[in-house]
Amino acid sequence: MAHPFDDAVALVATGEDSYEGHLSPAYGNMVGPFGGAIAATLLNAALSHKARLGMPISVTINYAGPIADAPFVVVAKPVRTNRSTQHWLLTLEQNGQIAVTGTAAFATRHESWADSELLRPQAPDAEEVGPLSASTSAFLPPWVSQYDLRFFKSALTFDSTPGADSESLLWVRDAQPRPLDFLSLMAISDVFFPRSFYRQQRMAPAGTVSITTIFHADAEQLAAHGEAHLLASARALRFYRGYFDQAATLWSTSGELLASSTQVVYFKG
Amino acid sequence: MAHPFDDAVALVATGEDSYEGHLSPAYGNMVGPFGGAIAATLLNAALSHKARLGMPISVTINYAGPIADAPFVVVAKPVRTNRSTQHWLLTLEQNGQIAVTGTAAFATRHESWADSELLRPQAPDAEEVGPLSASTSAFLPPWVSQYDLRFFKSALTFDSTPGADSESLLWVRDAQPRPLDFLSLMAISDVFFPRSFYRQQRMAPAGTVSITTIFHADAEQLAAHGEAHLLASARALRFYRGYFDQAATLWSTSGELLASSTQVVYFKG
Repeated sequence: MAHPFDDAVALVATGEDSYEGHLSPAYGNMVGPFGGAIAATLLNAALSHKARLGMPISVTINYAGPIADAPFVVVAKPVRTNRSTQHWLLTLEQNGQIAVTGTAAFATRHESWADSELLRPQAPDAEEVGPLSASTSAFLPPWVSQYDLRFFKSALTFDSTPGADSESLLWVRDAQPRPLDFLSLMAISDVFFPRSFYRQQRMAPAGTVSITTIFHADAEQLAAHGEAHLLASARALRFYRGYFDQAATLWSTSGELLASSTQVVYFKG
Repeated sequence: MAHPFDDAVALVATGEDSYEGHLSPAYGNMVGPFGGAIAATLLNAALSHKARLGMPISVTINYAGPIADAPFVVVAKPVRTNRSTQHWLLTLEQNGQIAVTGTAAFATRHESWADSELLRPQAPDAEEVGPLSASTSAFLPPWVSQYDLRFFKSALTFDSTPGADSESLLWVRDAQPRPLDFLSLMAISDVFFPRSFYRQQRMAPAGTVSITTIFHADAEQLAAHGEAHLLASARALRFYRGYFDQAATLWSTSGELLASSTQVVYFKG
Protein backbone atom coordinates (compact mmCIF):
# COMPACT_ATOMS: atom_id res chain seq x y z
CA MET A 1 0.00 0.00 0.00
CA ALA A 2 1.25 3.48 -0.89
CA HIS A 3 2.15 5.94 1.88
CA PRO A 4 -0.72 8.45 2.26
CA PHE A 5 1.66 11.29 1.33
CA ASP A 6 2.60 9.59 -1.95
CA ASP A 7 -1.11 9.26 -2.68
CA ALA A 8 -1.68 12.95 -1.87
CA VAL A 9 1.01 14.17 -4.30
CA ALA A 10 0.34 11.56 -7.02
CA LEU A 11 0.00 12.78 -10.61
CA VAL A 12 -0.86 11.11 -13.89
CA ALA A 13 0.95 12.50 -16.95
CA THR A 14 -1.53 13.69 -19.57
CA GLY A 15 0.86 15.52 -21.92
CA GLU A 16 4.44 16.73 -22.28
CA ASP A 17 4.11 19.32 -19.49
CA SER A 18 0.71 18.47 -17.99
CA TYR A 19 -0.56 16.15 -15.30
CA GLU A 20 -3.84 15.32 -13.60
CA GLY A 21 -4.07 15.19 -9.81
CA HIS A 22 -6.69 14.93 -7.12
CA LEU A 23 -7.16 15.95 -3.48
CA SER A 24 -6.54 13.47 -0.68
CA PRO A 25 -9.03 13.54 2.23
CA ALA A 26 -6.17 12.54 4.57
CA TYR A 27 -4.51 15.92 3.85
CA GLY A 28 -7.68 17.99 4.13
CA ASN A 29 -7.51 21.42 5.79
CA MET A 30 -10.22 23.56 7.46
CA VAL A 31 -11.26 24.54 3.96
CA GLY A 32 -9.72 22.78 0.95
CA PRO A 33 -6.38 20.95 1.08
CA PHE A 34 -3.24 21.35 3.22
CA GLY A 35 -1.08 23.83 1.32
CA GLY A 36 2.09 21.84 1.93
CA ALA A 37 0.68 18.84 0.06
CA ILE A 38 -0.34 21.10 -2.83
CA ALA A 39 3.11 22.69 -2.97
CA ALA A 40 4.66 19.21 -3.04
CA THR A 41 2.24 18.17 -5.80
CA LEU A 42 3.41 21.04 -8.03
CA LEU A 43 7.03 20.23 -7.25
CA ASN A 44 6.29 16.60 -8.09
CA ALA A 45 5.23 17.65 -11.59
CA ALA A 46 8.67 19.17 -12.24
CA LEU A 47 10.51 16.29 -10.54
CA SER A 48 8.60 13.76 -12.70
CA HIS A 49 9.18 15.64 -15.95
CA LYS A 50 11.28 13.89 -18.62
CA ALA A 51 13.31 17.05 -19.26
CA ARG A 52 14.25 17.59 -15.61
CA LEU A 53 17.83 18.67 -14.86
CA GLY A 54 19.20 18.37 -11.31
CA MET A 55 17.23 18.81 -8.13
CA PRO A 56 15.31 21.77 -6.61
CA ILE A 57 17.23 24.55 -4.90
CA SER A 58 14.34 27.04 -4.59
CA VAL A 59 10.57 26.70 -5.00
CA THR A 60 7.89 29.39 -4.71
CA ILE A 61 4.21 28.47 -4.56
CA ASN A 62 1.37 31.02 -4.52
CA TYR A 63 -2.10 29.94 -3.40
CA ALA A 64 -4.20 32.00 -5.77
CA GLY A 65 -7.67 30.57 -5.25
CA PRO A 66 -9.67 27.76 -3.65
CA ILE A 67 -9.24 24.15 -4.86
CA ALA A 68 -12.39 22.04 -4.99
CA ASP A 69 -12.51 18.31 -4.30
CA ALA A 70 -12.38 17.40 -7.99
CA PRO A 71 -9.57 16.52 -10.41
CA PHE A 72 -7.15 19.31 -11.26
CA VAL A 73 -4.51 19.97 -13.91
CA VAL A 74 -0.88 20.72 -13.03
CA VAL A 75 1.33 22.24 -15.73
CA ALA A 76 5.11 22.27 -15.20
CA LYS A 77 7.05 23.97 -18.00
CA PRO A 78 10.85 23.90 -18.09
CA VAL A 79 11.13 27.37 -19.60
CA ARG A 80 14.91 27.69 -19.45
CA THR A 81 17.56 24.99 -19.21
CA ASN A 82 21.21 25.97 -18.82
CA ARG A 83 24.31 23.86 -18.31
CA SER A 84 23.73 23.36 -14.58
CA THR A 85 20.45 25.16 -13.79
CA GLN A 86 16.85 24.86 -14.95
CA HIS A 87 13.87 27.16 -14.39
CA TRP A 88 10.22 26.11 -14.18
CA LEU A 89 6.86 27.82 -14.39
CA LEU A 90 4.21 25.93 -12.43
CA THR A 91 0.42 26.25 -12.38
CA LEU A 92 -2.52 24.31 -11.00
CA GLU A 93 -5.82 24.81 -12.81
CA GLN A 94 -9.32 23.62 -12.14
CA ASN A 95 -12.26 24.31 -14.46
CA GLY A 96 -9.97 26.41 -16.63
CA GLN A 97 -9.14 28.77 -13.77
CA ILE A 98 -5.68 29.10 -12.19
CA ALA A 99 -5.75 28.21 -8.50
CA VAL A 100 -1.98 27.98 -7.83
CA THR A 101 1.06 29.58 -9.45
CA GLY A 102 4.70 28.89 -8.83
CA THR A 103 8.27 28.86 -10.00
CA ALA A 104 11.12 26.48 -9.28
CA ALA A 105 14.86 26.65 -9.81
CA PHE A 106 16.64 23.32 -10.17
CA ALA A 107 20.40 22.75 -10.28
CA THR A 108 23.10 20.17 -10.45
CA ARG A 109 25.38 21.10 -7.58
CA HIS A 110 29.16 21.34 -7.71
CA GLU A 111 31.85 21.06 -5.07
CA SER A 112 32.59 24.30 -3.22
CA TRP A 113 33.67 25.79 0.04
CA ALA A 114 30.97 25.06 2.63
CA ASP A 115 29.88 26.40 6.00
CA SER A 116 26.81 26.73 8.17
CA GLU A 117 26.50 30.11 9.85
CA LEU A 118 23.25 29.40 11.62
CA LEU A 119 23.48 26.74 14.30
CA ARG A 120 20.69 24.31 15.07
CA PRO A 121 18.56 25.47 18.01
CA GLN A 122 19.16 23.66 21.30
CA ALA A 123 16.61 20.89 21.65
CA PRO A 124 15.73 17.96 23.84
CA ASP A 125 15.71 14.58 22.06
CA ALA A 126 12.55 13.95 20.06
CA GLU A 127 11.75 10.96 22.26
CA GLU A 128 11.61 13.22 25.32
CA VAL A 129 8.97 15.53 23.84
CA GLY A 130 5.29 14.64 23.91
CA PRO A 131 2.89 14.79 20.94
CA LEU A 132 0.14 17.39 20.50
CA SER A 133 -2.41 17.19 23.28
CA ALA A 134 -5.76 15.61 22.46
CA SER A 135 -7.52 18.83 23.45
CA THR A 136 -5.47 20.79 20.89
CA SER A 137 -5.76 18.12 18.18
CA ALA A 138 -9.54 18.17 18.52
CA PHE A 139 -9.58 21.66 17.01
CA LEU A 140 -7.28 20.84 14.11
CA PRO A 141 -7.99 19.65 10.56
CA PRO A 142 -7.25 16.16 9.13
CA TRP A 143 -3.78 16.90 7.69
CA VAL A 144 -2.36 17.56 11.16
CA SER A 145 -2.75 13.89 12.12
CA GLN A 146 -0.57 12.94 9.11
CA TYR A 147 2.38 14.44 11.00
CA ASP A 148 4.08 13.55 14.26
CA LEU A 149 4.43 17.04 15.77
CA ARG A 150 6.36 17.36 19.03
CA PHE A 151 6.44 20.95 20.22
CA PHE A 152 8.93 21.97 22.86
CA LYS A 153 8.41 25.71 22.50
CA SER A 154 5.01 27.31 22.04
CA ALA A 155 2.61 24.46 21.57
CA LEU A 156 -0.82 25.69 20.54
CA THR A 157 -2.82 25.64 23.73
CA PHE A 158 -5.48 28.29 23.07
CA ASP A 159 -5.13 29.41 26.66
CA SER A 160 -5.41 33.07 27.52
CA THR A 161 -1.73 33.94 27.90
CA PRO A 162 -0.27 34.76 24.48
CA GLY A 163 3.51 35.04 24.43
CA ALA A 164 5.49 38.06 23.33
CA ASP A 165 6.72 36.27 20.23
CA SER A 166 5.38 33.60 17.91
CA GLU A 167 8.43 31.34 17.79
CA SER A 168 7.67 27.62 17.74
CA LEU A 169 10.27 24.89 18.07
CA LEU A 170 9.32 21.30 17.38
CA TRP A 171 10.33 17.91 16.11
CA VAL A 172 8.35 16.78 13.09
CA ARG A 173 8.12 13.83 10.70
CA ASP A 174 5.45 11.94 8.83
CA ALA A 175 3.16 10.16 11.33
CA GLN A 176 3.59 6.99 9.29
CA PRO A 177 7.38 7.07 8.83
CA ARG A 178 8.59 7.73 5.28
CA PRO A 179 12.15 8.42 4.08
CA LEU A 180 12.68 12.17 3.67
CA ASP A 181 12.84 13.51 0.09
CA PHE A 182 12.34 16.87 -1.62
CA LEU A 183 8.58 16.31 -1.78
CA SER A 184 8.09 15.65 1.92
CA LEU A 185 10.55 18.42 2.87
CA MET A 186 8.56 20.86 0.70
CA ALA A 187 5.34 19.86 2.44
CA ILE A 188 6.88 19.97 5.92
CA SER A 189 8.13 23.50 5.25
CA ASP A 190 4.43 24.50 5.36
CA VAL A 191 3.55 22.40 8.43
CA PHE A 192 3.41 25.29 10.92
CA PHE A 193 0.14 26.62 12.29
CA PRO A 194 -0.50 30.29 11.50
CA ARG A 195 1.62 32.54 13.70
CA SER A 196 -1.50 34.63 14.40
CA PHE A 197 -2.99 31.66 16.32
CA TYR A 198 -0.05 31.85 18.73
CA ARG A 199 -0.05 35.58 19.23
CA GLN A 200 -3.80 35.79 19.65
CA GLN A 201 -4.26 32.35 21.26
CA ARG A 202 -7.36 31.74 19.22
CA MET A 203 -8.25 30.44 15.80
CA ALA A 204 -9.40 32.96 13.23
CA PRO A 205 -9.32 32.82 9.43
CA ALA A 206 -5.74 32.73 8.10
CA GLY A 207 -4.25 31.32 4.93
CA THR A 208 -0.88 31.24 3.21
CA VAL A 209 -0.72 33.45 0.13
CA SER A 210 2.85 32.62 -0.94
CA ILE A 211 5.58 30.29 0.30
CA THR A 212 9.22 30.09 -0.80
CA THR A 213 11.39 27.18 0.29
CA ILE A 214 15.16 27.11 -0.25
CA PHE A 215 16.76 23.67 -0.20
CA HIS A 216 20.21 23.73 1.40
CA ALA A 217 20.88 20.02 0.91
CA ASP A 218 21.09 17.53 -1.92
CA ALA A 219 19.29 14.23 -2.43
CA GLU A 220 22.11 12.32 -0.69
CA GLN A 221 21.75 14.36 2.50
CA LEU A 222 17.98 13.89 2.51
CA ALA A 223 18.37 10.14 1.94
CA ALA A 224 20.88 10.00 4.81
CA HIS A 225 18.30 11.65 7.07
CA GLY A 226 15.85 8.86 6.37
CA GLU A 227 12.82 8.57 8.64
CA ALA A 228 14.22 10.57 11.56
CA HIS A 229 12.48 13.61 13.01
CA LEU A 230 13.37 17.04 11.65
CA LEU A 231 13.99 19.88 14.05
CA ALA A 232 11.82 22.80 12.96
CA SER A 233 11.53 26.45 13.92
CA ALA A 234 9.04 29.07 12.79
CA ARG A 235 8.43 32.69 13.71
CA ALA A 236 6.88 35.86 12.38
CA LEU A 237 8.78 39.10 11.90
CA ARG A 238 5.81 41.47 11.48
CA PHE A 239 2.00 41.48 11.52
CA TYR A 240 0.56 44.46 9.65
CA ARG A 241 -2.79 45.32 8.08
CA GLY A 242 -4.07 41.85 7.34
CA TYR A 243 -0.82 40.02 6.53
CA PHE A 244 2.08 38.56 8.41
CA ASP A 245 5.18 36.64 7.39
CA GLN A 246 6.65 33.43 8.73
CA ALA A 247 10.31 32.44 8.60
CA ALA A 248 11.07 28.76 9.17
CA THR A 249 14.08 26.46 9.31
CA LEU A 250 14.24 22.65 9.06
CA TRP A 251 17.24 20.71 10.41
CA SER A 252 18.54 17.17 10.34
CA THR A 253 19.01 15.37 13.65
CA SER A 254 22.75 15.83 13.27
CA GLY A 255 22.42 19.59 12.85
CA GLU A 256 22.50 20.23 9.09
CA LEU A 257 20.20 22.97 7.83
CA LEU A 258 18.20 21.11 5.16
CA ALA A 259 15.73 23.85 4.18
CA SER A 260 14.65 27.36 5.08
CA SER A 261 11.35 28.87 4.13
CA THR A 262 9.45 32.14 4.23
CA GLN A 263 5.80 32.76 3.66
CA VAL A 264 3.29 35.57 3.69
CA VAL A 265 -0.06 34.84 5.26
CA TYR A 266 -3.45 36.54 5.14
CA PHE A 267 -5.21 36.84 8.49
CA LYS A 268 -8.29 38.27 10.12
CA GLY A 269 -8.09 39.41 13.70
CA MET B 1 15.31 64.89 -16.12
CA ALA B 2 14.19 61.48 -14.96
CA HIS B 3 15.93 59.84 -12.00
CA PRO B 4 18.36 57.17 -13.31
CA PHE B 5 16.39 54.47 -11.46
CA ASP B 6 13.15 55.47 -13.21
CA ASP B 7 15.00 55.24 -16.51
CA ALA B 8 16.37 51.80 -15.59
CA VAL B 9 12.91 50.34 -14.83
CA ALA B 10 11.04 52.17 -17.61
CA LEU B 11 8.73 50.16 -19.85
CA VAL B 12 6.68 50.94 -22.94
CA ALA B 13 3.36 49.07 -23.17
CA THR B 14 3.15 47.05 -26.40
CA GLY B 15 0.03 44.99 -25.66
CA GLU B 16 -2.49 44.13 -22.94
CA ASP B 17 0.10 42.24 -20.83
CA SER B 18 3.35 43.03 -22.64
CA TYR B 19 5.95 45.75 -22.44
CA GLU B 20 9.29 46.60 -24.00
CA GLY B 21 12.24 47.56 -21.84
CA HIS B 22 15.98 48.14 -22.16
CA LEU B 23 19.08 47.96 -20.00
CA SER B 24 20.51 51.05 -18.35
CA PRO B 25 24.31 51.39 -18.35
CA ALA B 26 24.07 53.17 -14.99
CA TYR B 27 22.81 49.92 -13.43
CA GLY B 28 25.31 47.64 -15.14
CA ASN B 29 26.79 44.74 -13.21
CA MET B 30 30.05 42.75 -13.68
CA VAL B 31 28.23 40.89 -16.44
CA GLY B 32 24.79 42.06 -17.57
CA PRO B 33 22.50 44.23 -15.44
CA PHE B 34 22.07 44.66 -11.64
CA GLY B 35 19.47 42.04 -10.67
CA GLY B 36 17.64 44.44 -8.37
CA ALA B 37 16.88 46.78 -11.28
CA ILE B 38 15.64 43.82 -13.34
CA ALA B 39 13.41 42.61 -10.49
CA ALA B 40 11.99 46.12 -10.17
CA THR B 41 11.40 46.25 -13.94
CA LEU B 42 9.28 43.09 -13.82
CA LEU B 43 7.40 44.44 -10.81
CA ASN B 44 6.87 47.69 -12.72
CA ALA B 45 5.06 45.75 -15.45
CA ALA B 46 2.48 44.48 -12.94
CA LEU B 47 2.24 47.86 -11.18
CA SER B 48 1.64 49.61 -14.51
CA HIS B 49 -1.00 47.12 -15.71
CA LYS B 50 -4.56 48.42 -16.20
CA ALA B 51 -6.05 45.43 -14.38
CA ARG B 52 -3.88 45.84 -11.25
CA LEU B 53 -5.56 45.35 -7.86
CA GLY B 54 -3.83 46.58 -4.70
CA MET B 55 -0.12 46.65 -4.07
CA PRO B 56 2.57 43.96 -3.87
CA ILE B 57 2.87 41.84 -0.74
CA SER B 58 5.27 39.21 -2.14
CA VAL B 59 7.42 39.05 -5.29
CA THR B 60 9.67 36.22 -6.48
CA ILE B 61 12.11 36.77 -9.35
CA ASN B 62 14.27 34.01 -10.86
CA TYR B 63 17.28 34.95 -12.99
CA ALA B 64 17.11 32.19 -15.58
CA GLY B 65 19.63 33.35 -18.15
CA PRO B 66 21.83 36.22 -19.28
CA ILE B 67 20.28 39.47 -20.53
CA ALA B 68 22.03 41.16 -23.44
CA ASP B 69 22.25 44.91 -23.98
CA ALA B 70 19.31 44.96 -26.39
CA PRO B 71 15.56 45.58 -26.02
CA PHE B 72 13.63 42.92 -24.09
CA VAL B 73 9.98 41.96 -23.64
CA VAL B 74 8.33 41.81 -20.22
CA VAL B 75 5.02 39.96 -19.92
CA ALA B 76 2.93 40.45 -16.75
CA LYS B 77 -0.26 38.37 -16.68
CA PRO B 78 -2.82 38.83 -13.90
CA VAL B 79 -3.79 35.14 -13.86
CA ARG B 80 -6.13 35.25 -10.87
CA THR B 81 -7.96 38.20 -9.36
CA ASN B 82 -9.97 37.73 -6.18
CA ARG B 83 -11.84 40.21 -4.01
CA SER B 84 -8.74 41.48 -2.22
CA THR B 85 -5.80 39.58 -3.77
CA GLN B 86 -4.32 39.24 -7.24
CA HIS B 87 -1.71 36.81 -8.60
CA TRP B 88 0.74 37.50 -11.42
CA LEU B 89 2.97 35.45 -13.66
CA LEU B 90 5.98 37.45 -14.84
CA THR B 91 8.54 36.75 -17.56
CA LEU B 92 11.29 38.63 -19.34
CA GLU B 93 12.16 37.39 -22.83
CA GLN B 94 14.85 38.32 -25.28
CA ASN B 95 15.13 36.84 -28.78
CA GLY B 96 12.22 34.54 -27.96
CA GLN B 97 14.03 32.97 -25.00
CA ILE B 98 12.98 33.39 -21.37
CA ALA B 99 15.70 35.10 -19.31
CA VAL B 100 13.70 35.85 -16.13
CA THR B 101 10.64 34.25 -14.51
CA GLY B 102 8.64 35.44 -11.56
CA THR B 103 5.42 35.58 -9.63
CA ALA B 104 3.84 38.35 -7.61
CA ALA B 105 0.99 38.44 -5.11
CA PHE B 106 -0.78 41.77 -4.76
CA ALA B 107 -3.40 42.69 -2.17
CA THR B 108 -5.59 45.43 -0.84
CA ARG B 109 -4.84 45.43 2.87
CA HIS B 110 -7.42 45.55 5.67
CA GLU B 111 -7.24 46.72 9.27
CA SER B 112 -5.99 44.09 11.70
CA TRP B 113 -4.11 43.49 14.90
CA ALA B 114 -0.50 44.50 14.34
CA ASP B 115 2.86 43.86 15.94
CA SER B 116 6.55 43.70 15.10
CA GLU B 117 8.36 40.79 16.69
CA LEU B 118 11.73 41.56 15.21
CA LEU B 119 13.31 44.76 16.45
CA ARG B 120 15.47 47.00 14.29
CA PRO B 121 19.17 46.32 14.80
CA GLN B 122 21.04 48.89 16.89
CA ALA B 123 22.67 51.38 14.57
CA PRO B 124 24.61 54.63 14.62
CA ASP B 125 22.94 57.48 12.73
CA ALA B 126 23.47 57.30 8.97
CA GLU B 127 25.30 60.63 9.10
CA GLU B 128 27.91 59.11 11.41
CA VAL B 129 28.79 56.28 9.03
CA GLY B 130 31.17 56.75 6.13
CA PRO B 131 30.57 55.70 2.53
CA LEU B 132 32.32 52.80 0.79
CA SER B 133 36.05 53.35 0.58
CA ALA B 134 37.46 54.34 -2.79
CA SER B 135 39.70 51.24 -2.74
CA THR B 136 36.64 48.99 -2.38
CA SER B 137 34.55 50.93 -4.89
CA ALA B 138 37.30 50.56 -7.48
CA PHE B 139 36.54 46.83 -7.67
CA LEU B 140 32.80 47.22 -7.96
CA PRO B 141 30.48 47.48 -10.98
CA PRO B 142 28.58 50.61 -12.11
CA TRP B 143 25.29 49.91 -10.27
CA VAL B 144 27.00 50.22 -6.90
CA SER B 145 27.59 53.95 -7.41
CA GLN B 146 23.81 54.41 -7.88
CA TYR B 147 23.44 53.71 -4.16
CA ASP B 148 24.66 55.49 -1.06
CA LEU B 149 25.92 52.50 0.94
CA ARG B 150 27.13 53.15 4.50
CA PHE B 151 28.33 49.94 6.13
CA PHE B 152 28.78 49.82 9.88
CA LYS B 153 29.24 46.04 10.10
CA SER B 154 31.29 44.04 7.63
CA ALA B 155 32.22 46.43 4.92
CA LEU B 156 33.83 44.68 1.99
CA THR B 157 37.53 45.24 2.52
CA PHE B 158 39.07 42.24 0.71
CA ASP B 159 41.60 42.02 3.49
CA SER B 160 42.82 38.63 4.63
CA THR B 161 40.77 38.24 7.81
CA PRO B 162 37.37 36.84 6.95
CA GLY B 163 34.86 36.95 9.80
CA ALA B 164 33.03 33.96 11.25
CA ASP B 165 29.73 35.13 9.83
CA SER B 166 28.61 37.04 6.76
CA GLU B 167 26.29 39.53 8.45
CA SER B 168 26.36 43.02 7.00
CA LEU B 169 24.61 46.03 8.51
CA LEU B 170 24.35 49.25 6.56
CA TRP B 171 22.39 52.35 5.76
CA VAL B 172 21.31 52.55 2.13
CA ARG B 173 19.39 54.83 -0.20
CA ASP B 174 19.54 55.95 -3.81
CA ALA B 175 22.71 58.00 -4.35
CA GLN B 176 20.59 60.66 -6.03
CA PRO B 177 17.78 60.86 -3.46
CA ARG B 178 14.40 59.56 -4.67
CA PRO B 179 11.24 58.98 -2.58
CA LEU B 180 10.95 55.31 -1.60
CA ASP B 181 8.33 53.23 -3.41
CA PHE B 182 7.74 49.53 -4.08
CA LEU B 183 10.04 49.63 -7.12
CA SER B 184 13.05 51.06 -5.32
CA LEU B 185 12.43 48.87 -2.26
CA MET B 186 12.36 45.80 -4.53
CA ALA B 187 15.68 46.83 -6.08
CA ILE B 188 17.27 47.68 -2.73
CA SER B 189 16.32 44.22 -1.40
CA ASP B 190 18.94 42.90 -3.88
CA VAL B 191 21.59 45.54 -3.07
CA PHE B 192 23.84 43.29 -0.97
CA PHE B 193 27.16 41.97 -2.25
CA PRO B 194 27.37 38.17 -2.40
CA ARG B 195 27.85 36.70 1.08
CA SER B 196 30.64 34.53 -0.32
CA PHE B 197 32.74 37.68 -0.91
CA TYR B 198 32.62 38.36 2.83
CA ARG B 199 33.38 34.85 4.01
CA GLN B 200 36.20 34.36 1.53
CA GLN B 201 37.37 38.01 1.41
CA ARG B 202 37.81 37.81 -2.32
CA MET B 203 35.72 38.20 -5.42
CA ALA B 204 34.80 35.05 -7.33
CA PRO B 205 31.89 34.34 -9.68
CA ALA B 206 28.54 34.47 -7.86
CA GLY B 207 25.05 35.27 -9.06
CA THR B 208 21.54 35.33 -7.64
CA VAL B 209 19.37 32.51 -8.95
CA SER B 210 16.14 33.43 -7.15
CA ILE B 211 15.02 36.27 -4.87
CA THR B 212 11.79 36.59 -2.89
CA THR B 213 10.86 39.87 -1.25
CA ILE B 214 7.98 40.22 1.20
CA PHE B 215 6.60 43.72 1.65
CA HIS B 216 5.53 44.40 5.23
CA ALA B 217 4.34 47.94 4.59
CA ASP B 218 1.83 49.73 2.42
CA ALA B 219 2.28 52.61 0.01
CA GLU B 220 1.53 55.15 2.76
CA GLN B 221 4.37 53.87 4.94
CA LEU B 222 6.79 53.94 2.03
CA ALA B 223 5.72 57.46 1.11
CA ALA B 224 6.20 58.53 4.74
CA HIS B 225 9.76 57.18 4.62
CA GLY B 226 10.54 59.47 1.72
CA GLU B 227 14.19 59.95 0.81
CA ALA B 228 15.67 58.83 4.15
CA HIS B 229 18.22 56.02 4.45
CA LEU B 230 16.95 52.49 5.03
CA LEU B 231 18.65 50.35 7.64
CA ALA B 232 19.56 47.05 6.01
CA SER B 233 20.86 43.72 7.22
CA ALA B 234 21.92 40.64 5.25
CA ARG B 235 23.40 37.30 6.20
CA ALA B 236 23.75 33.75 4.92
CA LEU B 237 22.48 30.71 6.78
CA ARG B 238 24.37 28.01 4.86
CA PHE B 239 26.91 27.59 2.04
CA TYR B 240 26.76 24.13 0.48
CA ARG B 241 27.89 22.60 -2.80
CA GLY B 242 27.82 25.66 -5.03
CA TYR B 243 24.89 27.59 -3.53
CA PHE B 244 24.22 29.74 -0.51
CA ASP B 245 21.24 31.67 0.72
CA GLN B 246 20.92 35.25 1.92
CA ALA B 247 18.32 36.57 4.35
CA ALA B 248 17.85 40.34 4.43
CA THR B 249 15.75 42.92 6.25
CA LEU B 250 15.05 46.57 5.34
CA TRP B 251 13.89 49.05 7.97
CA SER B 252 12.62 52.59 8.10
CA THR B 253 14.57 55.15 10.11
CA SER B 254 11.87 55.02 12.77
CA GLY B 255 12.17 51.23 13.13
CA GLU B 256 9.40 49.78 10.97
CA LEU B 257 10.26 46.59 9.09
CA LEU B 258 9.39 47.57 5.51
CA ALA B 259 10.56 44.45 3.68
CA SER B 260 12.30 41.13 4.22
CA SER B 261 13.93 39.11 1.52
CA THR B 262 15.60 35.77 0.90
CA GLN B 263 17.64 34.65 -2.03
CA VAL B 264 19.60 31.67 -3.25
CA VAL B 265 22.91 32.38 -4.93
CA TYR B 266 25.21 30.35 -7.14
CA PHE B 267 28.90 30.66 -6.30
CA LYS B 268 32.30 29.31 -7.25
CA GLY B 269 34.95 29.05 -4.62
